[in-house]
Amino acid sequence: MALRAALRGRLSQLSSCTGHGRVCVPPTLLTQQRNSSTSPKIKVDLDQSTGVAVMRMQSPPVNSLSLDFLTELCISLEKLEMDKGCRGLIITSSQPKVFSAGLDIMEMYGKSPERCGEFWKAVQEMWLKLYSSNMVTIAAINGSSPAGGCLVSLTCDYRIMADNPRFSIGLNETQLGIVAPFWFKDTLANTVGHRHTEMALELGLLYNPAEALKIGMVDQLVPEDQVLSTATETMTKWLTIPEHARQITKSMMRKPTIDKLTSNRDADIHNFVSFITKDSIQKSLRMYLEMLKKRRG
Amino acid sequence: MALRAALRGRLSQLSSCTGHGRVCVPPTLLTQQRNSSTSPKIKVDLDQSTGVAVMRMQSPPVNSLSLDFLTELCISLEKLEMDKGCRGLIITSSQPKVFSAGLDIMEMYGKSPERCGEFWKAVQEMWLKLYSSNMVTIAAINGSSPAGGCLVSLTCDYRIMADNPRFSIGLNETQLGIVAPFWFKDTLANTVGHRHTEMALELGLLYNPAEALKIGMVDQLVPEDQVLSTATETMTKWLTIPEHARQITKSMMRKPTIDKLTSNRDADIHNFVSFITKDSIQKSLRMYLEMLKKRRG
Amino acid sequence: MALRAALRGRLSQLSSCTGHGRVCVPPTLLTQQRNSSTSPKIKVDLDQSTGVAVMRMQSPPVNSLSLDFLTELCISLEKLEMDKGCRGLIITSSQPKVFSAGLDIMEMYGKSPERCGEFWKAVQEMWLKLYSSNMVTIAAINGSSPAGGCLVSLTCDYRIMADNPRFSIGLNETQLGIVAPFWFKDTLANTVGHRHTEMALELGLLYNPAEALKIGMVDQLVPEDQVLSTATETMTKWLTIPEHARQITKSMMRKPTIDKLTSNRDADIHNFVSFITKDSIQKSLRMYLEMLKKRRG
Repeated sequence: MALRAALRGRLSQLSSCTGHGRVCVPPTLLTQQRNSSTSPKIKVDLDQSTGVAVMRMQSPPVNSLSLDFLTELCISLEKLEMDKGCRGLIITSSQPKVFSAGLDIMEMYGKSPERCGEFWKAVQEMWLKLYSSNMVTIAAINGSSPAGGCLVSLTCDYRIMADNPRFSIGLNETQLGIVAPFWFKDTLANTVGHRHTEMALELGLLYNPAEALKIGMVDQLVPEDQVLSTATETMTKWLTIPEHARQITKSMMRKPTIDKLTSNRDADIHNFVSFITKDSIQKSLRMYLEMLKKRRG
Repeated sequence: MALRAALRGRLSQLSSCTGHGRVCVPPTLLTQQRNSSTSPKIKVDLDQSTGVAVMRMQSPPVNSLSLDFLTELCISLEKLEMDKGCRGLIITSSQPKVFSAGLDIMEMYGKSPERCGEFWKAVQEMWLKLYSSNMVTIAAINGSSPAGGCLVSLTCDYRIMADNPRFSIGLNETQLGIVAPFWFKDTLANTVGHRHTEMALELGLLYNPAEALKIGMVDQLVPEDQVLSTATETMTKWLTIPEHARQITKSMMRKPTIDKLTSNRDADIHNFVSFITKDSIQKSLRMYLEMLKKRRG
Repeated sequence: MALRAALRGRLSQLSSCTGHGRVCVPPTLLTQQRNSSTSPKIKVDLDQSTGVAVMRMQSPPVNSLSLDFLTELCISLEKLEMDKGCRGLIITSSQPKVFSAGLDIMEMYGKSPERCGEFWKAVQEMWLKLYSSNMVTIAAINGSSPAGGCLVSLTCDYRIMADNPRFSIGLNETQLGIVAPFWFKDTLANTVGHRHTEMALELGLLYNPAEALKIGMVDQLVPEDQVLSTATETMTKWLTIPEHARQITKSMMRKPTIDKLTSNRDADIHNFVSFITKDSIQKSLRMYLEMLKKRRG
């Protein structure tokens, strides 16, 4: 009952992020149909002269964070992290209207516990790598960024979002009947404080850019066509900061939060797997997927 | 000396929350004279069709949190919590101009250590039940809400206050020479952050509605006659959220704070009893009570 | 490379805090040349009738926190703390345009590990004494207040800053290639929250008064010639609060932060000494000092 109402609520939220009559998030089912598993899901361009890499998520249609996607992302991050010539990373999307729609629901629906565990470990890995990166990381949020997409942006040192009221951002897991784990919560609380995190997570709120700026979920709004150029300019400033001191400072700020997951990875995987494989949760996901199908049908 | 000055300060604060020439808080002495111990202090109306209960505090004149009041409140909460048909709770006041004046000073003045300990245990119990409630809880703050009254509202998921500048809200214990315990402090810090909590508690600040909204102590202001209806509308939205996910999320946000008291209840009772039964504190309370008498005389 | 760029960045920041064509912070080299080690660096006036002491930092040119300065400060603080007649402390500067330029770089450059350790212990001691003071402490920030100068003001109960856009305040250590330790970080986070602290420390940001007010780094801006009088008026209000309750409350708010350093002083000294005596850090400091010389040349 509550779920159905929630889905209705969510649908109206989704439609508010529709552009040109087309739902932009999160038709993750489409992923299955359209994605070519052979083409790279991540494109990285490193400018050797500036030491700045631009990472473009290009997994149609909505950059869902599938296991394949996460694996590719982690490999890319590891390479950049070890490359002395790379000091800054800008993360953005090649897909229209969406930064990333978040975790791929198909990875959580009808899968074996083993596979679910493997998937969750990859989500953890991505977060650990991003949140603890020695590079300066800037999110150039050029579209909607719900759930896991929001998490990716929250791991960055700075967030610039396109000032388009059709876009939204937030950890809206609760709206789908699932729960953001403690390290999603910690990352958000480190950004917007305890009270906004409580409201945001309990209600699964999606914020438009102006609201997100107001509570500090993003740092800056710019016109849609200036997101990447502003990120590049901002990066230039950040790279003037003495690197060693900046890195130690970043680690000091984030280590306690990172340690909490590092010392609890297995328990966290276990929690996720037992929750997501529950009949009631699987039923919720099925209803959600069927609703998406109908809407597209 | 300092106390006398403080009381003067407090008197002027109180007069700023006077309506129609009558002091509205906290003549808790009156409680003793007017209260009928047989009439219920709490009135609960549960709408079975919506699953929403409205709890009206109706202990004249100012809903002081006496031991009897707290006992009744806890019993009501327990019943609602166990009632599967009740999913949301709105807490409001039947008394004019006051939500609740907070802890009943008469329970702390001239009482035996045993009785003080019993009283404090009931205060703890109320907080534990409210702050950890599985229900959606909304405070419909239709009057002034100092000290323990503020605490009640802070335990809720959402706070709507009457936009009447004569009303005030805050944890003003310090002004009376007593100290808000660590779990009052934690509850406030979870709502308005560390710095505002430090200022608020050190100075025993009472905020008018606009100030309270600004620092996030309340979430929304509405005209006085729309407090309850707005609470009801807000509740409807909250109840569309998938319940299980919302409850787990709420617990994740609040469990560390709750655990701190749960694992320290006896020590906290002991601290309170030794503090409140000190001669100097009892003297402060007597001066305060005499001052209230004179004002009314 | 990064450092040089950082220094350029810093120079432009510095010039933005130049008044009448003269750099106001932080020509700490000058300290060496002009300071008379015999004249007192701290002047304390205690008004017995009000119980309020005004502490003036008067170590030309910029109140650098040298070992001598810190020692004198700590002795003064201890005397005031033990004086029952002193209940409030206002900290301000006798130097034009600067509150305090922060830690004296000469104490960190070319010094033996033993001497560096002695210096750092004095910095710890100052912070411990100020942050845990039983007195009401108010910072009357009548000039720029970078790094350690900002820290001094952050330890106070209330911060009033001169509304002069040429003045700046912030923990800008990173800009110099050094790192604010965890207790500087904790003090700032307790004031402006986690996210602003992360940004402020990673970038070594200096804020103008309006910006500092906006994020809560200071509590109030007043015209330059009213800083001290406003501090005195504010103190009068704070001293009306029942003292014992206020002190217990302040301790409750700050004890966890203080305990973190108290139980880690030796390790913290060791960390500082091994960091600051590194060749690379000494080289950074030398470049910085030479740059200051040239600018003045």
